[in-house]
This record gives sequence, structure tokens and C-alpha cells, in this order.
Amino acid sequence: MYKEMSAEERRRMLEDEMKAYKKLAKKGMSVDMTRGRPSKEQLEIAMPMLEAAGYYDYSAGVADARNYGEPAGTKAARALFGELLGVKPAEVIVSDGSSLDMMYNAVQFAMQFGVMGGVPWNKQGRVKFICAAPGYDRHFSICAAFGIDMITVPMKDDGPDMDLIEPLVRTDVSIKGMWCVPKYSNPTGIIYSDEVVSRIAAMKHAAEDFRVFWDNAYAVHGLYGNDDRLKSVYDAAKKAGNGDMIYQFASTSKITFAGSGVAAFAASEANVADMLGKMFFKQINPNKVNQVMHVNFLKDVENIKRIMARHAEILRPKFELFERKLSEAFGESGDVRWSKPRGGYFISLDVPGCAKRVVSLAAEAGVKFTAAGSTYPYMQDDADGNIRIAPSVPSLDETEFATDVLISSIRIALLERSLR
Amino acid sequence: MYKEMSAEERRRMLEDEMKAYKKLAKKGMSVDMTRGRPSKEQLEIAMPMLEAAGYYDYSAGVADARNYGEPAGTKAARALFGELLGVKPAEVIVSDGSSLDMMYNAVQFAMQFGVMGGVPWNKQGRVKFICAAPGYDRHFSICAAFGIDMITVPMKDDGPDMDLIEPLVRTDVSIKGMWCVPKYSNPTGIIYSDEVVSRIAAMKHAAEDFRVFWDNAYAVHGLYGNDDRLKSVYDAAKKAGNGDMIYQFASTSKITFAGSGVAAFAASEANVADMLGKMFFKQINPNKVNQVMHVNFLKDVENIKRIMARHAEILRPKFELFERKLSEAFGESGDVRWSKPRGGYFISLDVPGCAKRVVSLAAEAGVKFTAAGSTYPYMQDDADGNIRIAPSVPSLDETEFATDVLISSIRIALLERSLR
Repeated sequence: MYKEMSAEERRRMLEDEMKAYKKLAKKGMSVDMTRGRPSKEQLEIAMPMLEAAGYYDYSAGVADARNYGEPAGTKAARALFGELLGVKPAEVIVSDGSSLDMMYNAVQFAMQFGVMGGVPWNKQGRVKFICAAPGYDRHFSICAAFGIDMITVPMKDDGPDMDLIEPLVRTDVSIKGMWCVPKYSNPTGIIYSDEVVSRIAAMKHAAEDFRVFWDNAYAVHGLYGNDDRLKSVYDAAKKAGNGDMIYQFASTSKITFAGSGVAAFAASEANVADMLGKMFFKQINPNKVNQVMHVNFLKDVENIKRIMARHAEILRPKFELFERKLSEAFGESGDVRWSKPRGGYFISLDVPGCAKRVVSLAAEAGVKFTAAGSTYPYMQDDADGNIRIAPSVPSLDETEFATDVLISSIRIALLERSLR
Repeated sequence: MYKEMSAEERRRMLEDEMKAYKKLAKKGMSVDMTRGRPSKEQLEIAMPMLEAAGYYDYSAGVADARNYGEPAGTKAARALFGELLGVKPAEVIVSDGSSLDMMYNAVQFAMQFGVMGGVPWNKQGRVKFICAAPGYDRHFSICAAFGIDMITVPMKDDGPDMDLIEPLVRTDVSIKGMWCVPKYSNPTGIIYSDEVVSRIAAMKHAAEDFRVFWDNAYAVHGLYGNDDRLKSVYDAAKKAGNGDMIYQFASTSKITFAGSGVAAFAASEANVADMLGKMFFKQINPNKVNQVMHVNFLKDVENIKRIMARHAEILRPKFELFERKLSEAFGESGDVRWSKPRGGYFISLDVPGCAKRVVSLAAEAGVKFTAAGSTYPYMQDDADGNIRIAPSVPSLDETEFATDVLISSIRIALLERSLR
């Protein structure tokens, strides 16, 4: 962009754009697009669950849900997540609201006690995780907390770059894990292709205690219905003799209430037994009252899809507004690229060399985006290009304002760069 | 007992007692007295909380409780636990249902990352905890899981034996913690005296990262009103310049729902900041929806005491039945001693040399008690004397049956021993 203009023209254009930008900033609006949070309107969808809370039968299960017992969660909750993830109830542990917590625990157990009788990772020298980027910052922070080295590999349109990953995992015994958000990936919104899923499932791994952390956070979070297919990594792994290699995670944080829902871990029965053996020391049982509420409200996968269609109706216009305005502003220029997700909570924007400047300009005008670099391990985006955009919380008006600010900020950053 | 009888008389008596025992066993009843669980009747007390769940104002707080945010819990929940524990809201973290989980996390954080900038316990060689016994088996299992050495010290009627503990903690830098259930202690039911609390609070500790794990599980769980006083260990510690030495824990597991309530950690603001810094990587927030429900239902400490009076009405007759029957059977014999708790969930029974045999006899007749030895670190009760009795779940009839079986089992065990 701006390549055919003279420096003088660009300087004038920058001045005009700065005026437009300042006019926007003067509106004094404040919009937060940093995190993938549901909006208030979405949270209302699950209120009938609470309205009926006094009428569910809490003592109907194997054990009274209001009392101690059932460390793996209620039978009905395990069955529901089993249906959602396409696994047997015995392959599921349902826990409290945060799947992040279950992922952290899985890493902590491995570090301190080892995986399925293996040597604790703490005692194996430096260990490493494969981190496709751009990716989910909270995955990278778990690695950072435990001092796990992160190997950054590119995230492509069909999933992580398997040509790079396969030889690493096959040969390096210190590689213990790999983070994946396989559907409507955070932040690029892509869905792993069948081929990528098959290759992940069939990976030869030098470390017996290597685990794929399959964070299926957006399993039913389509913006255009819920027919987008994701191949079952667990079925494929079992066929390849890798059944124990897969840890799956999911939660209802973006189906009912954020952090106040229920979360699930799914894996082979051997992994489940290993996990429960370690959880024994932590907790007598999860919040099973909440699990009874969820099972009664969510019912089954078909009903979950109906609930998610209502979420999509609220989210879709914001994503489409963003797409329309950015297309109008930058078309196929090539300097500015962004994802067109069919689900999830994020749009991923790439403005090489300008991400930090754009985020900073937008912030000054009242629009907060996740810090540039956040989608990369060690916050290190060598291209300074990626910005994660979370349009779920702001209203349509706020989304429009935020998009205008973003466009103006991008123009300024590009013009400034072209004049350097 | 039985000392004045001839061997022949004792043999005949044993035969008679075996007949009585078999008659009891033939009733085919099955009673579980292993764990301190609330009864169904007690669980009903908190049902109005769920009945009103649809009507609480979840968006009234600093942030919408149904959405992400507030990693330390809602402001109102922190204030309520602050009131309960006599500390400032800023000194409280309210988390999900299990205080055991918070204790485990505190130990895990210390092992892996160190306490307040200190060297991780994992890197300090063997570390040790002081464990007064009889005590809570779940405390001892956390130590066992992490390979923390347990130093067993006697639990006396006014608390742990401070004459033994003080010189150990003062001189041994590898002693990092000490478990306490200060009020209606598990299992002996005693309350730490003011003097013991003061001595704990003022302990000189060789290890800067030494922490007292003050598990105030039964803060308001009196059987005879809630006026039994426990001196504030935190206030006393602050006065002694030991403010950072105290970790307090509490939960509503036996106020609302077991494992589905809310739990709290209270400590100095420096400790709270340290804990939140480590929790950041685990969880975005706890189940705040549940916290809103609890705050609305529990209201304040006065109301909690009214709720707990209803629990006491259900529990007290079972404790009193047990006390009456054991007094009738064994009086002041001295061979059989048991606690007369004014609160909590347990009666502690001592039958030196007979605990294993008694538990085994009772189990055969249909009454399950916690495994003998459970109340000691490493399951090691050198006197084979202590049995923990949890009469909360069984009905009055079941409690009567269980007590009869227990009495018969004790008689048999004592007679058998006297004939050896």
C-alpha cells in the first residue's frame, strides 16, 4: 500500500489520517478487545439453568451430588462430555469450571510425579513443548511458569507445520508436550485439517511420556451452525497405537458461564486412572452440584448446539462488521491480512512490522487489544505482525468504533513506516 | 477391665460376647462411619440457596460474576470470609469448593516455585512437616504424595505438644510446615488453648519459608452453640512479628454442600500476593456464580451461626447417643477412652493394642470405621489404639446399631487380648 505515492503525498495523507484518528480518540469511548470473554447478552442465555437450580434432583445419581464422593465427577456429566468429545464416559473426568486448571494440573503432575509411572519431568533436565504460533497465550504462560522450553513452529491454515514437528518429536526425548487448539484455533480461527490431525495422531515420539494437549475449547462454537468437522484425534491415535498420547480438554466457559461452568479432561482409561490417582491428594470431589445443574440444562449435544446457535447470533454480526470494514479499508492490499473465522472468539490480524505501533495507537484512542506479541512464546513475534482481536464483549456500536480506530491506527503505522 | 476375673470366666464371657456379636451381625445392617460427611438432612438446609439461584444479582459486584475476572474471588465473598476468620478482605482468597485443594496448591507452589521468592522446596533436599497425631489423614497424604517427611508429635487435650515442637522448628531449617486443625480438631475434637495458640504464633522458625497450615475446618461447627472461643493465631502472630508465617484455610463444605461449597485461604497481604501470582497460571477465576449464591444465602457470620445451629440439632443426638452408650458400657475403666467433643464431626476412641482388631470385627458385622492407623502419619499408630468415629451420616437408629457393634467388638478384642 501507498507504494505508488510520493513521499510528499504520504506525508499529507498521514496528516489527514492523524486528524481522523484524533477525532475518533476525542469521542472518549473505551472498548476492551483484549480477551475472549462472552458478552452480558450471551451470559443471559444460561440463566434458566440457575432459575431451575432449586428443582433439579441432586440425589438422583450414583451418590448425592451435594455430598462428598465421585472424584471424577457425576456419572451423567461424564456421559455428557463423553458424547461431546466422542469418547466413553470412563475416559472422562469432569472437574470445576476451568480447563486451564486441568491443563496446569496435568503439567504439574508430570513435573512433580511423572506421567504414568515415568520419571518426573522435574528430574529429566530441561524439557520442551511444541508451541505452534500464533497461539493461546495462556498455554505459553504455563510453560513459562514451569520453566519448560518452548519450540515455536508456524501455525498454518490447516494446523501446525507438521513437516517441522514430526522429526523433532521423533528424535528429541526432552520434548514432552505439544499445545493444540484444533477447532477455531486461538487466535487464527482455523480448523486442523484431517491430514494434520492424522499426522499428529500417528506421531512417533522419542519420549514415552510425550502428550498432545488437545485443548478443544471451541468444539461447538461455530458462527455458522455447528457442522464444521474436526477429525477425532483420539480415534486416529488409538488406531496408530498412540491412544495414551492424547490429553483432551474442554469446558463450558463459553457455553454457560466463564470460569463458573464445568471443565473436562478426556483420555485413555490408563491416563484417567493416572490422573485420578494424583488428583486424590488434591480434592475429594469437584463441585457436583454445578455438574447436576449443567447436565439438566445442557441435556445432550443436540441441545448444546441449539444453545450455541443463540450465542452465534449474538457474535456473528460483530465478526461480520469487522470483516466488512477491513475489506473496505484494505481489500487485497497484502500489507494487512486477517482471518475470517467460522467460529471461536478471535480474529487474527497481521500487519508485519507494525503490530506494536498499532496496538499502542489504538490504546491511546481508547481501544485495548491484547499486547502485541502475546500470541507467541516468550511474547516474541519476530515479524511484529500479529494482533489478536476479541470482538465478543463490545456492543455492535463499540465494535464499529473499535474497528474504525483499528483501521486508522493501521493506516498511520503503515504511512509512518513508509516514511522512515 | 476383666482384670479381676479368672481366665475361665473371661473365656466364658468371650463366648457370650461372640454370641451377642453374631446376633448383631445377623441383622445385615450396613453403616458407614468412615468419613466426616454431612447427612442428607443437613444438606437440605442449604437448598433455599439453590431455590433462589435464579434471583440473585450476579452482575451487582465489581465485575459480572458470570464472566471472567476477579481471580481472588468476588469482593463480597472475600469480605464474608474475612468476617468469619477475623481478617481483612484483602487478606482472603476465595476459591472453589475444596480447602484441601487450596492446601495442596500451597504445598505444590512451595515445592515447585518456593515461598515468597525463596528456593523451591524441591531444591532444598528432604523437607519436613510437623504432624500432631492423631490428626487429619488427608493432611498426611499430601505430605506423603510430595515425599515430605512427617515428624509425628503427640496431640494433647489443649493442642499439639509445643514443648516438643518449639525446639524442632527453631533449629531445623528443613522443617517447612505444620498442620493444625485448631478448633474441634480432627479427630479428637479438642480446641487449641490460648496458650498453645500463642506459642504457635510466636514460634521462632529456622526456615524463613516455614508456614503454619491452620486448617480452620470447623470454625462455626459447634454442637452446643457457637461460643467456644479460639484465639486468633494471625493476630497473635502479627504481634510476634510472625504475620507471614500463618496460612489459614476454611470452607463451607459442612455449611452448605460438601465439595460444592466455597473455600478460602487467608494470610498476610504479602502471602496473598505470592499465592495469586502463582494461581495466575492455573485459573482465570474461581466459580464466582457459586460465590454469589453463597454470599446471598449465608449473609453474615450471625446468620451462619443460625444455620449451624440447625446442623447441630441434627448432629448432637448422634454424638450424645454414642457418649451415653459408651459410658454405660465402659464407664471409667481406663482401657477404653473416647473424646467428648463440643463440635466438629468426629469422636476419637482409644483402645490401646486393639484398634485394628476392633475395626476389623466391626466391619465384619456391617459397620465401617476409618482404617486403624489413619489418624497417624504413615498410618503408623504405634499403640494400635486410635479409632476415628464419624457419626454424621448414619441415622439415629443406625448410630445405635453401630455403637452396639462397636461396644461388642471392643469387648471381644479386650477379652481376646487378656487371654493371650
